Amino acid sequence: MEIISDYITLSTKGDSDIKDITGEVNSRLAKAGLKNGIVNISVLGSTCAITTCEYEPGLINDLKQMFENFIPKDKDYNHDGAWHDGNAHSHLRSSLVGPSLSISFIDGKLFLGTWQQIIFIDFDNRARKRKILLQFSGE
Amino acid sequence: MEIISDYITLSTKGDSDIKDITGEVNSRLAKAGLKNGIVNISVLGSTCAITTCEYEPGLINDLKQMFENFIPKDKDYNHDGAWHDGNAHSHLRSSLVGPSLSISFIDGKLFLGTWQQIIFIDFDNRARKRKILLQFSGE
Amino acid sequence: MEIISDYITLSTKGDSDIKDITGEVNSRLAKAGLKNGIVNISVLGSTCAITTCEYEPGLINDLKQMFENFIPKDKDYNHDGAWHDGNAHSHLRSSLVGPSLSISFIDGKLFLGTWQQIIFIDFDNRARKRKILLQFSGE
Repeated sequence: MEIISDYITLSTKGDSDIKDITGEVNSRLAKAGLKNGIVNISVLGSTCAITTCEYEPGLINDLKQMFENFIPKDKDYNHDGAWHDGNAHSHLRSSLVGPSLSISFIDGKLFLGTWQQIIFIDFDNRARKRKILLQFSGE
Repeated sequence: MEIISDYITLSTKGDSDIKDITGEVNSRLAKAGLKNGIVNISVLGSTCAITTCEYEPGLINDLKQMFENFIPKDKDYNHDGAWHDGNAHSHLRSSLVGPSLSISFIDGKLFLGTWQQIIFIDFDNRARKRKILLQFSGE
Repeated sequence: MEIISDYITLSTKGDSDIKDITGEVNSRLAKAGLKNGIVNISVLGSTCAITTCEYEPGLINDLKQMFENFIPKDKDYNHDGAWHDGNAHSHLRSSLVGPSLSISFIDGKLFLGTWQQIIFIDFDNRARKRKILLQFSGE
């Protein structure tokens, strides 16, 4: 068993910009050279999140609309009263979806369906540069 | 430390069919023979999810109703406009709940409360056969 | 690679009492003495949950309001019809947010942003004493 750490850096536009990072995770897994184990994908920051979905333009729009329906951008939040940075909705969406995801791999392949991609969502209200940690533990 | 992989296969009815898989996870843990560690449970597919709940008929109905309130089945979604398979709501619910869960075990027992079961939810709009990966890492 | 298990016990007021446990997780990580790996944080019970957020009073209020908007306390639920303990909403919120979180650490430090704290949420409708398992796997 070993632990191998790697990073992905991303530039996003914010406002629920959704990035498919499956290809990057796959290439870092190949580089790590492990066969069986788990990759824990953790995002740095409290206004972004990670999950999976079918990465297809229609569904990406549906996801953005879902978050806007659940937690609207233009609403009075206590956090914005204190900080005036207008991103309370970004924080709330991030806490709901969650900041990390662990996906197993078998024989060097991520255990994901054909239409199941790993997505990073930047909920912040401005463009950001983001850092994601991939920590592979396995053999 | 070792890694042991095992699978559960399930037949579901779709439409938010909720299955208690705690017993299966427990029996696979006993078979793996590990005492302390983590089991990562990952589902294959972008229209199902995994979490925990008290597996009790009233609450199972409440959960189904909650998902229908949040993300109604009969609504116009962009994904359905493109694919016409009518399961955009299934994808959205899956992304919200998440495709994997890691639960620790201690002295050969899953760290779960008496009324806390591991549930697999099939959000797809038709019956499916599903594959779940259990990856135990521990000693 | 080794596995080290530790516990946090907490007294909460229930009713979406939100506790910042980052400091405790950090001190247990230091005690474990591992440099690189993952901590899996699992809660015991089906009416509480774990995620991250910026721990700031305004946002804590926004989070509580968000859960009350999504899954109101005073609504007819099937679970309450059967059990009369009035905490169906607590169970539903717990299943939505999730019972465990895995965060990586690098060089002995949790991979978290400055404004990203690990929070335990007790959704139950009464004061509780809670037990949280921290399982560190790493080297």
